[in-house]
Amino acid sequence: MADSEALPSLAGDPVAVEALLRAVFGVVVDEAIQKGTSASQKVCEWKEPEELKQLLDLELRSQGESQEQILERCRTVIRYSVKTGHPRFFNQLFSGLDPHALAGRIITESLNTSQYTYEIAPVFVLMEEEVLRKLRALVGWSSGDGIFCPGGSISNMYAVNLARYQRYPDCKQRGLRTLPPLALFTSKECHYSIQKGAAFLGLGTDSVRVVKADERGKMVPEDLERQIGMAEAEGAVPFLVSATSGTTVLGAFDPLEAIADVCQRHGLWLHVDAAWGGSVLLSQTHRHLLDGIQRADSVAWNPHKLLAAGLQCSALLLQDTSNLLKRCHGSQASYLFQQDKFYDVALDTGDKVVQCGRRVDCLKLWLMWKAQGDQGLERRIDQAFALARLRGKQDSPDYHERLSKVAPVLKERMVKEGSMMIGYQPHGTRGNFFRVVVANPALTCADMDFLLNELERLGQDL
Amino acid sequence: MADSEALPSLAGDPVAVEALLRAVFGVVVDEAIQKGTSASQKVCEWKEPEELKQLLDLELRSQGESQEQILERCRTVIRYSVKTGHPRFFNQLFSGLDPHALAGRIITESLNTSQYTYEIAPVFVLMEEEVLRKLRALVGWSSGDGIFCPGGSISNMYAVNLARYQRYPDCKQRGLRTLPPLALFTSKECHYSIQKGAAFLGLGTDSVRVVKADERGKMVPEDLERQIGMAEAEGAVPFLVSATSGTTVLGAFDPLEAIADVCQRHGLWLHVDAAWGGSVLLSQTHRHLLDGIQRADSVAWNPHKLLAAGLQCSALLLQDTSNLLKRCHGSQASYLFQQDKFYDVALDTGDKVVQCGRRVDCLKLWLMWKAQGDQGLERRIDQAFALARLRGKQDSPDYHERLSKVAPVLKERMVKEGSMMIGYQPHGTRGNFFRVVVANPALTCADMDFLLNELERLGQDL
Repeated sequence: MADSEALPSLAGDPVAVEALLRAVFGVVVDEAIQKGTSASQKVCEWKEPEELKQLLDLELRSQGESQEQILERCRTVIRYSVKTGHPRFFNQLFSGLDPHALAGRIITESLNTSQYTYEIAPVFVLMEEEVLRKLRALVGWSSGDGIFCPGGSISNMYAVNLARYQRYPDCKQRGLRTLPPLALFTSKECHYSIQKGAAFLGLGTDSVRVVKADERGKMVPEDLERQIGMAEAEGAVPFLVSATSGTTVLGAFDPLEAIADVCQRHGLWLHVDAAWGGSVLLSQTHRHLLDGIQRADSVAWNPHKLLAAGLQCSALLLQDTSNLLKRCHGSQASYLFQQDKFYDVALDTGDKVVQCGRRVDCLKLWLMWKAQGDQGLERRIDQAFALARLRGKQDSPDYHERLSKVAPVLKERMVKEGSMMIGYQPHGTRGNFFRVVVANPALTCADMDFLLNELERLGQDL
Repeated sequence: MADSEALPSLAGDPVAVEALLRAVFGVVVDEAIQKGTSASQKVCEWKEPEELKQLLDLELRSQGESQEQILERCRTVIRYSVKTGHPRFFNQLFSGLDPHALAGRIITESLNTSQYTYEIAPVFVLMEEEVLRKLRALVGWSSGDGIFCPGGSISNMYAVNLARYQRYPDCKQRGLRTLPPLALFTSKECHYSIQKGAAFLGLGTDSVRVVKADERGKMVPEDLERQIGMAEAEGAVPFLVSATSGTTVLGAFDPLEAIADVCQRHGLWLHVDAAWGGSVLLSQTHRHLLDGIQRADSVAWNPHKLLAAGLQCSALLLQDTSNLLKRCHGSQASYLFQQDKFYDVALDTGDKVVQCGRRVDCLKLWLMWKAQGDQGLERRIDQAFALARLRGKQDSPDYHERLSKVAPVLKERMVKEGSMMIGYQPHGTRGNFFRVVVANPALTCADMDFLLNELERLGQDL
């Protein structure tokens, strides 16, 4: 096809549609999947923003382009994108490319439906229910409720909104103005979404009381107790504690049993942000880190992180069986949730959320789980713990000190060479240090050795 | 491969990974794309929930399954899912299957990154900026801000949160308790997310003042003026008007110029929920329906609806150039938004949102736009308007009366036969009627004729 020839509309031409999609899929397999997960290729092809803009030719114009041009654009997009499935990508709490999950995601995209009614998502309404049931069973609940959310931050917000609604059902209609000042509690190591959520929900960030963490990053239950007393003394009403299983920076697991005791004594909603650590429940060896999670009222768990299900796969799980989710968020839109439907309208789960259209996030997890079984997923978790021990090298006397000083420089060098990607940040008195996230199920000891050797190589002149 | 043989982990075996994904993609092309968009096939294969559960065998077990079993599961999932790309699917405000958008979505899934930093999403940070710039230009703005959200409901919530923050910046920290009662205004035809958002944001549904709509579903500006006066008389502080361009049920376009006049007089934030109707801005013939939108402070526009970009593709556009979005939502997480990075950290857009991880929603729209050009997309909009005229048959004397009585029965029959899908609901004094959504770019006059003839056929004994 000539480069300048405009593509006729593909609609109504199944042969052309199939040819285009097969060609694009070929590019995806070669460039994103094979090269994108090969240790012999770069993890990223760094370009300065201005140069990248030129390379991408982003402008949207009046005329359409030929199929050849479109294919070339697909190649360019993949080429300059970061390969998060690459074994040298340690940069975020997600990494790796599970082929079954990816298969589920491609099917999800091709079916393009919304999760809100049984009518248009019969398979996925039932599947979401089953996946949530399985996750709840791992938490230790034989009944309950739940929903997939667009990310753990929204899951955390839902928990806060549900807790305040349960205590003050009037606030849905009348708002916060007539309520006493509310207080929620979380440790200084919590995810920043707790602060963001408090602001967004109208509580204000002042309503978040920050509880001390020990040097390993775990919430100190005695300080929680103290903070609750202080809040009450100031006239605030404590209503929720958000504990964390797997903190963002240090990977710490808060002591849930002790925190649950405090919540029980004071009648507070216990939310566990297990976005990162929830998947550890699959490991018989390590699940003790979450002992007490069964006493929570709500749990946020993101299988797109440690299980590599693909962005986004974020479950909010509830112990509640009183339909709290629907009562709190529902508004009974008559155009979507008609009550005179010919099937059981309890299957229309869309009114449980504050979204309207909602993506299907269950299939990728379900299909991966069917392929791996509990056993396969458990092996991944155990392997991640084994690899994360980092084989002792981090104990060399000047490791922390050197990293602290040179982290931004090392980061720039690794990205511009494309050899690997790790995130860094300061933490308390530590200064900058690298947060090596070990989540990719394809990682081996050789990859971890590479990581340490490469840090040494990149920094040898510093 | 024997049916009972467990699949070894595919990680580290690129040949097996490629074989699996090519096999799944073959199933997707045959079943979801070719059959799924063919008028000679059913739009859905209805099963009662209990039967469907059996057919799907949803349970997640300890053992993994063979590749053959996994492929069969893929076929089953597609078989019993509703084909939203089918020319007889008129059920929701999204439909159709654009091949270029689908190509973009498959690439997005294979790259699996989050949109929050330039570091890990260099291509998509720049691309989102360009796509938002293009959408803003169609609104009539040469500068501004914006972000893609997980659905129009969240976009609408953002608008409300931004408006209250602009007026009362303290509320981010101190919450709503210290503020006077706030009032926002929208018509009775608005999307239900305005109510949901008011509850979620802590304002309470009482803060939503419902303005009259005329018989075509358009907001009555005189009543808006009256409602503002009433709210003020009751001691509330008006702060936002949410107008709608393309209401959910009737597809009405509120008179934006007159509403903007009212907002200007009272100093109110004007938000336009153009989730459905925004795409009409691409049509020189029909864009007058949104005259005045350039006077808005914020616009919600979902290209996943009328442009068939795929769920979800929801832009929130802002006229603001003062970094309001980041000031309102930001919390400067040090592990993600390090200020000592080696590139311009203004490119890290993640702190503009209340999510943390955020899906890439720009590529599918950008790739489709590159392929179609403004001209191709404009033709789609014009064609949708032409087809929506329904060729006169709806004017038969007893059309509305018959539909009103028999809509739930007709719906059950069409779904169980799988011949087509249309949503129905009551509206005011109208009783039940069918909402025929004409959005699929592949629709022809023949499909519209089929729709009317099929309604007659299904209901001939009623």
